Amino acid sequence: MIVGIAGLGLIGGSLAKAYKSAGDHTVYGFDADEATLGFAQVAGAIDGVLTPETAAQCGLLLIALYPKDAVEYLRSLAPYIPRDALVIDCCGVKRFVCQACFELAAAHGFTFVGGHPMAGTHNSGFKYSRPTLFKGAAMILVPPVYDDIMLFDRIEKALAPAGFGHLTVTTGEKHDEMIAFTSQMAHVVSNAFIKSPAAREHKGYSAGSYKDLTRVAWLNPDMWSELFLENRDVLIRELDFFIGSLSKYRDALDKSDGPALRALLDEGRRLKEELDGR
Amino acid sequence: MIVGIAGLGLIGGSLAKAYKSAGDHTVYGFDADEATLGFAQVAGAIDGVLTPETAAQCGLLLIALYPKDAVEYLRSLAPYIPRDALVIDCCGVKRFVCQACFELAAAHGFTFVGGHPMAGTHNSGFKYSRPTLFKGAAMILVPPVYDDIMLFDRIEKALAPAGFGHLTVTTGEKHDEMIAFTSQMAHVVSNAFIKSPAAREHKGYSAGSYKDLTRVAWLNPDMWSELFLENRDVLIRELDFFIGSLSKYRDALDKSDGPALRALLDEGRRLKEELDGR
Repeated sequence: MIVGIAGLGLIGGSLAKAYKSAGDHTVYGFDADEATLGFAQVAGAIDGVLTPETAAQCGLLLIALYPKDAVEYLRSLAPYIPRDALVIDCCGVKRFVCQACFELAAAHGFTFVGGHPMAGTHNSGFKYSRPTLFKGAAMILVPPVYDDIMLFDRIEKALAPAGFGHLTVTTGEKHDEMIAFTSQMAHVVSNAFIKSPAAREHKGYSAGSYKDLTRVAWLNPDMWSELFLENRDVLIRELDFFIGSLSKYRDALDKSDGPALRALLDEGRRLKEELDGR
Repeated sequence: MIVGIAGLGLIGGSLAKAYKSAGDHTVYGFDADEATLGFAQVAGAIDGVLTPETAAQCGLLLIALYPKDAVEYLRSLAPYIPRDALVIDCCGVKRFVCQACFELAAAHGFTFVGGHPMAGTHNSGFKYSRPTLFKGAAMILVPPVYDDIMLFDRIEKALAPAGFGHLTVTTGEKHDEMIAFTSQMAHVVSNAFIKSPAAREHKGYSAGSYKDLTRVAWLNPDMWSELFLENRDVLIRELDFFIGSLSKYRDALDKSDGPALRALLDEGRRLKEELDGR
């Protein structure tokens, strides 16, 4: 397979390394940062630079840039992409990216599928990339149509070298709703939690619950602020719901209402038990 | 050493097993639940029942009950406790417990020291207790005075069989402030977070960040509602601060203010880096 990869950060770099180590694939890479591009070549993660000329040879194009950059990059490269090529992005929001890229694909004749690999670390950049990053991880896919069995087969074969544990097909709307809750909100909550003045004095009192809760506070502000803004309607809805939930505990405490507080805690406990089992 | 342990749940049961397995100690235990008391005896975690008669032989008394029960239990047993005995509780709030128990100790002549072992699991009860629960964990101590070196030496020797990693001395006020942030707030946040309607549909989108954030949602509602109410002033202050922090992100999203959102995220990232290092 001849694979093009745009963006050689943690995700794109790991994809490049995964394809190179999975077998006899040719990988062309692009990164806006020339040092990264050069380093990826020296490291053997790519065989050459992804240009309009090399893009024209690719059967698979993976785009691992921030959402707006991903769309703009695909717009600029679209005229050179073969009609039988498959293009998959890796952005953390899907409505915005898919809407723009489905249009580009329709206009130029190639196939675009939205993708979101559920893998990552709080470290970003090529230097943290590794070929096994996606091993066993979920890859969420947003296809242009839902009844094309041949397309699913094509996607599965194209992504096999990355080593995903399973592929999940959904819509952009459903993806953005779910990801607002499981990932984006978790990052907002973690990042906001650590701002308490008590955080500065907590050494020696650091419980496991604090460590888990603030783990993802260490995030990439450029990437996450863009992801949040592209999903702001759903994220605002989740934030309002969460602030409303917290306010119920606050009110029960304010009224010293033990039974109400206990009922709130028990409701949360039961939900956790139901959802995540023993 | 002759040790009395009141409350044979996860904490008290683990203390009993730790003292029994650490050497030639006699352990008398008490639990309001007769089946637990009988099971602890059969399991060899205790040598006999802690009564006014056996309490009179104890050099160390550990109280692992909920806060109000701990105070009432000590009040009822106080007349029988030797003047040279050391009494330590294990409650998660310290102002309320220490104030009451320092008075009881002064009135009856024994020594009381507030304690909070920083160990636990989301499972509670004797059946989950184990002798190694405290191995390497911190034990926070609130002594009646801060200049009695002999007392610290006595506490250290008395607690040695439990295997704590380190003993931290503080005031009830400081303890309750820190624990409101690192532990109580983490439990409220986790328990409230899972109430989103999105939680019920998140299967397949379950990121590591969601898992970490909701780990402690599975809590003991009876214990935590009592702990929260006994620390409500500090906990309400933390909740108000946190809701205020979240509202800043919400407002930046509402205004689609990218720079403000980025600045909020970067502030959280820097704090996390400063506080918890690489």
